[in-house]
Amino acid sequence: MSKMSAPAARLFLDDLHVGQTFASADHAIDETQIKAFAVQFDPQPFHTDTEAAAETLFKGLAASGWHTAAITMRLNVDGGLPFAGGIVGAGGEINWPNPTRAGDVLHVESEVVEITPSRSKPDRGIVTVISRTLNQRGDVVQTLKAKLVVFRKSL
Amino acid sequence: MSKMSAPAARLFLDDLHVGQTFASADHAIDETQIKAFAVQFDPQPFHTDTEAAAETLFKGLAASGWHTAAITMRLNVDGGLPFAGGIVGAGGEINWPNPTRAGDVLHVESEVVEITPSRSKPDRGIVTVISRTLNQRGDVVQTLKAKLVVFRKSL
Repeated sequence: MSKMSAPAARLFLDDLHVGQTFASADHAIDETQIKAFAVQFDPQPFHTDTEAAAETLFKGLAASGWHTAAITMRLNVDGGLPFAGGIVGAGGEINWPNPTRAGDVLHVESEVVEITPSRSKPDRGIVTVISRTLNQRGDVVQTLKAKLVVFRKSL
Repeated sequence: MSKMSAPAARLFLDDLHVGQTFASADHAIDETQIKAFAVQFDPQPFHTDTEAAAETLFKGLAASGWHTAAITMRLNVDGGLPFAGGIVGAGGEINWPNPTRAGDVLHVESEVVEITPSRSKPDRGIVTVISRTLNQRGDVVQTLKAKLVVFRKSL
């Protein structure tokens, strides 16, 4: 799956099937990005201060989980999940099994696990997608199981 | 709950009980913030372009859900969830029942719903917290059910 490149065409509901997989491009994260995000949104020592972080349960600087989530979204918007109409989520389940570190190169591997056509709105459906964000060693730094609104092709 | 102010003291595992509630300060979000976050992490027209957003299912500019999540984290770090050792989450369930709009004033109301002392690590426990992010009209723009690591007071 990791060697698959994102298709150029944008996909509609009818183009999707359970088991279909997608992969994003890479994003390299560094200390500057980690600290800039954390200062704004998650100012805790293990995300903002390299020396102080060494003494915490992270044992070193780690990105905020919400930063990993935001990078994952960017990778999916930039072609990792090429859905026509964009990526519109109502929510999901998120887990961070390993920390994201400065120097990591992240990419996202996604799989369609469920497709439910809308009963009330025939132009769309809900597609459940599991997106796993991995670093260059293959460690999973985030899993996100999201319910996305995907549209049918207009006739 | 919304009239409660965050306590000044930082709380340890032994200070918490199921049903305990907390409230954050306010954060006012505007169009500039919404677009700046979206350009970096979620560049889709309903988050970056006020005119184009009017023609989408959001019917107007809306913040990225990940932006709402990041603001929620900041409000909780700044005293909304005053846990000793900070806010360390392994994951959770997130939902965005209503969009966050420019001009909204957000705050977070949190409740402890489960406390599970660690069997293997006696210095800590897992505390499940539901954080609801509300706008100035009382609409819930996000719910997050998170499992957090909370430490006991050192003896």
